[in-house]
Amino acid sequence: MTQKARLVPPDEALQIVVQATLKPTACSVPLLQATGRRLAEDVRADRDYPPFDRAMMDGYAVSGTDIGSDKPLRVAGQLAAGQTPTEPVVAGHCIEIMTGAACPKGTRAIVPGELVERDGRYARMPRDVLCQQHIALRGSESPEGSVVLQSGDVITPLAVGVLASVGHREVRVFLPPTVGILTTGGELIGSGQSPGSAQIRDSNGPMLAAMVLGCGLSVPQMHHADDRIEAIVEALHAMQACDLVVLTGGVSMGRYDLVPDSFRQIGAELVFHKVSQKPGKPLLFARRGRQLLFGLPGNPLAAHLCFHRYVAAAIRRWCGQPSAVPEIRLGRLLEPVRTGGNRTWFLLGRARRADTTESGWHLQPLPGSSSADLFGTSQANCYLEVPPGNRPVAAGKSLAFEWLAHGPAGW
Amino acid sequence: MTQKARLVPPDEALQIVVQATLKPTACSVPLLQATGRRLAEDVRADRDYPPFDRAMMDGYAVSGTDIGSDKPLRVAGQLAAGQTPTEPVVAGHCIEIMTGAACPKGTRAIVPGELVERDGRYARMPRDVLCQQHIALRGSESPEGSVVLQSGDVITPLAVGVLASVGHREVRVFLPPTVGILTTGGELIGSGQSPGSAQIRDSNGPMLAAMVLGCGLSVPQMHHADDRIEAIVEALHAMQACDLVVLTGGVSMGRYDLVPDSFRQIGAELVFHKVSQKPGKPLLFARRGRQLLFGLPGNPLAAHLCFHRYVAAAIRRWCGQPSAVPEIRLGRLLEPVRTGGNRTWFLLGRARRADTTESGWHLQPLPGSSSADLFGTSQANCYLEVPPGNRPVAAGKSLAFEWLAHGPAGW
Repeated sequence: MTQKARLVPPDEALQIVVQATLKPTACSVPLLQATGRRLAEDVRADRDYPPFDRAMMDGYAVSGTDIGSDKPLRVAGQLAAGQTPTEPVVAGHCIEIMTGAACPKGTRAIVPGELVERDGRYARMPRDVLCQQHIALRGSESPEGSVVLQSGDVITPLAVGVLASVGHREVRVFLPPTVGILTTGGELIGSGQSPGSAQIRDSNGPMLAAMVLGCGLSVPQMHHADDRIEAIVEALHAMQACDLVVLTGGVSMGRYDLVPDSFRQIGAELVFHKVSQKPGKPLLFARRGRQLLFGLPGNPLAAHLCFHRYVAAAIRRWCGQPSAVPEIRLGRLLEPVRTGGNRTWFLLGRARRADTTESGWHLQPLPGSSSADLFGTSQANCYLEVPPGNRPVAAGKSLAFEWLAHGPAGW
Repeated sequence: MTQKARLVPPDEALQIVVQATLKPTACSVPLLQATGRRLAEDVRADRDYPPFDRAMMDGYAVSGTDIGSDKPLRVAGQLAAGQTPTEPVVAGHCIEIMTGAACPKGTRAIVPGELVERDGRYARMPRDVLCQQHIALRGSESPEGSVVLQSGDVITPLAVGVLASVGHREVRVFLPPTVGILTTGGELIGSGQSPGSAQIRDSNGPMLAAMVLGCGLSVPQMHHADDRIEAIVEALHAMQACDLVVLTGGVSMGRYDLVPDSFRQIGAELVFHKVSQKPGKPLLFARRGRQLLFGLPGNPLAAHLCFHRYVAAAIRRWCGQPSAVPEIRLGRLLEPVRTGGNRTWFLLGRARRADTTESGWHLQPLPGSSSADLFGTSQANCYLEVPPGNRPVAAGKSLAFEWLAHGPAGW
């Protein structure tokens, strides 16, 4: 019970997790399911874009000969978007044309309708028409065969538009991992039951499932085991097909902390156990084949930090995000904070814009009487990163922080 | 065709849209479906939290009498988390206890196991034990009946944890709107077809659907209509049950621009038509009962801007977000940009951190030869807001920008 293991520094632990995460696998999915994921292939233009000289305004197509002249031109026809032009526009004539329509042969400019004096079958153009005006030339946006999106790009809505344009109904993306969540602990009861006097309801399972959803993944597999090694091992076997397994509880050195042993029993390799951080010191990280296993403490705030910092990084990496580590920013502390001794203290806090510009953040640590108090967290939007040390960090000092939430896949 | 309507300034248009958006409606949903939404009820603690004096460490429960003494204490029992204590801890005795367990009556401190000398059935405590140490007192986090989450709060994963703790399997949230998307335009073909020489594939439908998903909503209803008023009216009738209708195409003053008339035909009230912005000037906003209708231009970049700026604001408001208007930040231009004359120009760009701190952003306008070019946008992560004016904005000047993407519901 007094066994000492080396405490892994938090940034080293993060690097180990990211490096242990396998190369993402790819799969074709329908376009809308691809939103927010990362491309696993280069995408090329299947034809010139625009595929024809495209009118960019409602107006009149005129030939080169008539540019600069205000002689009335005979309106020789009309072209709506989608209509294939059959006749060229010739000198002395013009063709009424709508935005998005293919320009007829011979078109050298589109004159916006509101600048034209129309008189029955004739139309008079202004003199200051420029060659090529309001025409998007064929191939000017992307010539056929050019790469329009690159492998690794995030599939934003704009990218979905590009994919649809070039005829993709499906696209190869990096597949997100499947996640299994296992809560352990004899004091926990499920959400439908009434807790006894020494029991509490499980909050970690729903919280971690919500974090999985927040990473843009599907609803995870959920399991619960009581504090018997056989029950934990059985649940781990049931989650064999999951890419990531997240356990909570039973990872410290108490008599009922059976998770490290159960990891060993299923043949997983323990990579590290204990990180020099507060909360979440007993974090356990293991591997079984391509499966990554995270043993999180049962304390809800420790479980939250460990998911936020380590599991989410593994998920981002698995989804093909090149820089999977959390983005660190700097802000100014509004009140002094204690330090975590020889451990880095990740403290829930609230970052507020210092002024209306982007020039800084003010950081308010959350008042929290106890390190396991989930109830004081509703105003939190970030983690303050208090470096190891023995003296409190004074108000006004600069401190690193990480946002709690990101958009799906970082866009 | 030369009809002049007043151009509504972009910020006024945004205010009109937000004010026209109805109060959100509320509904109970299962906890995991509530993630990312906003609470439509106050949530109270159903009992004291913690519900008992909770041990915060693995160790030994000792009585007040033995605090400060290093006389060996008789280990009178063992308590795991979840076990109801049956015997009090009395002077001269201690009880081995696990993290999360309910302290037995008489407990005044928990002594961490690693500080204790254990010798068979006896254990010797250190002398420097503090009263109440490593105990979270009953009710210290949230007493029974206290409000633990407030109506309007975003349901983050931490809030899901709180909801699960206090026994909520369902929770009342503000319901997101249902969205229908209608693309119009005879030049557009569906994704499965092969385009003719003057035709293009529809990119707006998939792009806008992806934007709907990006707002945390479900897959929208999708419709397409050709350039006949009957077809558009029929599609609008089919979308009667949608809270928001988003059309693209047919809103400018061309001969085939039938959307304003079709809005009138179904009895919708036109609220505004044309905004002094570039792109997206012909934006049309209308109401039919509680339904909001947005007529977006067919130009994909104009459609993107109008959704980003106006439709997304209506969605945020509908979901109960108090400040629904986009968040503006300031950055420094890396190269000069032209202005949009008397219109505000929303220009896709890329914001990069000026340095490793949070102290500023560098703004790179995207090179784009044509205002309808979707292919040059893959690096965009923001809109630069170039104010109206006749002189280009010089490199180095400060400029407002908006991020393209937010996390679901703003967390």
